[in-house]
Amino acid sequence: MRTYSFADIGSDSLYEHLYKCIRTDILQGVLHAGEKLPSKRSFAKNLGISIITVENAYGKLMEEGYIFSLPKRGFYVTDFKDSITKKKPAPQEAIPLTGGEQGYLADFSSNQTPASLFPFTIWAKLIREELHNKQKELMTNPPYGGILPLRQAIARHLQEFRGMRVSPEQIIIGAGTEYLYGLLVQLLGMDKRYAVEDPGYRKISQIYQSYSVACHFISMDEMGVCVNNLEEKNINVIHISPSHHFPTGIVMPISRRYELLSWASKKEGRYIIEDDYDSEFRLSGQPIPTLQSIDVSEKVIYMNTFTKTLASTIRISYMVLPPHLVQTFYKNLSFYSCAVSNFEQYTLARFIEEGYFEKHINRMRTYYHHKRDAVIHAIYNSPLKKYVRISKEDAGLHFLMEIKTPHPDREFVNLLKVSGIKLAPLSDYFMQKTEGAEHIYVMNYSSIEQEKIEEAVQIIYKYCKCSPYSC
Amino acid sequence: MRTYSFADIGSDSLYEHLYKCIRTDILQGVLHAGEKLPSKRSFAKNLGISIITVENAYGKLMEEGYIFSLPKRGFYVTDFKDSITKKKPAPQEAIPLTGGEQGYLADFSSNQTPASLFPFTIWAKLIREELHNKQKELMTNPPYGGILPLRQAIARHLQEFRGMRVSPEQIIIGAGTEYLYGLLVQLLGMDKRYAVEDPGYRKISQIYQSYSVACHFISMDEMGVCVNNLEEKNINVIHISPSHHFPTGIVMPISRRYELLSWASKKEGRYIIEDDYDSEFRLSGQPIPTLQSIDVSEKVIYMNTFTKTLASTIRISYMVLPPHLVQTFYKNLSFYSCAVSNFEQYTLARFIEEGYFEKHINRMRTYYHHKRDAVIHAIYNSPLKKYVRISKEDAGLHFLMEIKTPHPDREFVNLLKVSGIKLAPLSDYFMQKTEGAEHIYVMNYSSIEQEKIEEAVQIIYKYCKCSPYSC
Repeated sequence: MRTYSFADIGSDSLYEHLYKCIRTDILQGVLHAGEKLPSKRSFAKNLGISIITVENAYGKLMEEGYIFSLPKRGFYVTDFKDSITKKKPAPQEAIPLTGGEQGYLADFSSNQTPASLFPFTIWAKLIREELHNKQKELMTNPPYGGILPLRQAIARHLQEFRGMRVSPEQIIIGAGTEYLYGLLVQLLGMDKRYAVEDPGYRKISQIYQSYSVACHFISMDEMGVCVNNLEEKNINVIHISPSHHFPTGIVMPISRRYELLSWASKKEGRYIIEDDYDSEFRLSGQPIPTLQSIDVSEKVIYMNTFTKTLASTIRISYMVLPPHLVQTFYKNLSFYSCAVSNFEQYTLARFIEEGYFEKHINRMRTYYHHKRDAVIHAIYNSPLKKYVRISKEDAGLHFLMEIKTPHPDREFVNLLKVSGIKLAPLSDYFMQKTEGAEHIYVMNYSSIEQEKIEEAVQIIYKYCKCSPYSC
Repeated sequence: MRTYSFADIGSDSLYEHLYKCIRTDILQGVLHAGEKLPSKRSFAKNLGISIITVENAYGKLMEEGYIFSLPKRGFYVTDFKDSITKKKPAPQEAIPLTGGEQGYLADFSSNQTPASLFPFTIWAKLIREELHNKQKELMTNPPYGGILPLRQAIARHLQEFRGMRVSPEQIIIGAGTEYLYGLLVQLLGMDKRYAVEDPGYRKISQIYQSYSVACHFISMDEMGVCVNNLEEKNINVIHISPSHHFPTGIVMPISRRYELLSWASKKEGRYIIEDDYDSEFRLSGQPIPTLQSIDVSEKVIYMNTFTKTLASTIRISYMVLPPHLVQTFYKNLSFYSCAVSNFEQYTLARFIEEGYFEKHINRMRTYYHHKRDAVIHAIYNSPLKKYVRISKEDAGLHFLMEIKTPHPDREFVNLLKVSGIKLAPLSDYFMQKTEGAEHIYVMNYSSIEQEKIEEAVQIIYKYCKCSPYSC
């Protein structure tokens, strides 16, 4: 008969210990499905415990379904593992577990906030004060759109920086723009025909595709997306970045903006998502009014993010809904909880309200201005100058560089990669045809270290002039 | 001829000022579409500025599309507002802008972490240290699944508390479980047939419906969801909370767990989402192994959250994917950025690693234990005792209370509401039929203030016995 030791039962009662021993044996297959357990009386005698102890242990095992009883016959182990097929292990791809791409001398393919620029001291001070002074507010569930002080601070910021008049209830705070796209698909409808600019950020179309909604590519001319293309493809919702298109750098002129608004106003259910992601970093020139601020038909959903202005690792973005969509959102989607932590919402609200955000943007803008000038200066003062043409250097955090080189884009990228330079060709951002985009590179300069600029330029020069066979 | 003052131009250059003046007039409709602008020469003379200044201003306005030129005829205001229909303001519903429901003497309908229980001092210390010591890490984009230290900490926690063996790459950190459901729908497919427990949390089915995916309701018996119902309705993905079902309090026995695993293993594409949302707060009894830990077919997606254990306003949850889904996620969804701020991820990782989380859970458990005892004690020591039957009081943060009262559920809830008591009837959580659920109330006791318990019980008593006409 089965025997268990009661020597090492810790704080468990006798019956609990017996219950656990039997359970372990069942789960590990020591006791098999259908196997009969000892009768209560004989088991108790054998283990030197009372019948009531065995009864309690059996009772608990029955309650949880490990064993069952047959009247006048006894207790049996439940047969629950019978028909489960074990999954055969498949070959696994290694999954990267750490972030950030390491090891490049210069990575022109993406922007990442340099750690030294983040206002750590002020942020630490503000969050410490909030943790001390606002404990009740921090623990109170915010409405779905975010805490009121942050929405008020953003409304004031938009008024001052972009001349936009929006009320706090139009603002929805979300955990990054990717998150907000997900909400928008739910708000506007999975059955709508969405469209993105071509060329453009690949991620936006990936998100739409991942939701299995129709996502079309709209070609661009020198003023932005072609409106007749929207009509042709019967689009409902178009995503654009008019203040500074990525990667072409096009700033959409006011005439095209009105043309788009006119397109949207012609049919029910047409909307424009205006992504204003890096408008804070225009380095010269006057801003053109946002579509949101000249929209009288409630057709524009404005979107912006703090991931560019503050840090890509703080996930706070927001959108501004036109009034009738505020109502729809409230009706259909207000069951969602706001996805951003109260702690960071309150801290950010004070950061904006007390003027730190404005100072920070100015500091960043100066930094980027100098960085851009340094990169362009290094290029113009090197022999690379003769091989390149720089354009669209006045807006946002990148410029375009056309390189006279015999190497096709993919080959040139690979050549440079082995020397520690990461370049992103413009052609990578085209979804359909890429004619005219060959040999143009999108130069994100913000994260290039000052002391490495010259060496990086030298390397690009070295490879751009060599023939495909000599290097 | 049009005249502008140059008295108050601030730091703008002359041409910038002129450009802005004309632009404002165009946007405000002072200058009309098609209107001819003065010639450069005469405008310059009239304003007392050089021709080149006017030329620069006109050039900028042309570039941005505000005006256009006709050869040998001059400059004209662009006609871009022609066909835009103005949206008529619709009647608006007032949108609540502040969170938390105020004004109840006792709200038994939801759990909210009492502010006094959150470990503010430790959290403040940890975040201050992280902001000081980990600046580079804080600014480095994490992989899509979250920072490695947090995923490691969670893996160790699951091993210790739930006996689960999972590797950090199986863990995906998300901004709340609602966010993770959205990811899961994208991972498993919008074309799948999803199902939830009936009764259950209404929000889960709302999320599925909001993604326009098929969501079915599966009825429950005393052991949990009925497996034959899953077969009948041809379900692919079932969402369950086996360790403590909300609101019935059912703990799924091991036999039903294996029955479910067996159902899932029978067909490709079948999955079980195991929501273990409040397993940390079992107040007595032994835990039954999670489905995840006895799953050999890679069919279980385990989900848990820190919104219950730490604070509902810190939005951090996670899921554990079976190995083959880790690969699918990496292939299809790793373009997403992790939606939780690095700052809170690093702080939480240390909070768990250094044992604070365990201490906090123990402290919370004791608090809830006392709170539950106090509420039940107050009921049993009041005349209400004769009218109620309490059950399922051992698991999670609520118990069920059946009340003998002539009032139908809705009426009783409304009667109590005017006296400051918020009750949630069990019938509210049924999606299909509600037979047998009448007169049972889901008593979330965690946020009831100690000194208000007695008064709340008195009020419930007062109304439960009165006839529908006398109160």
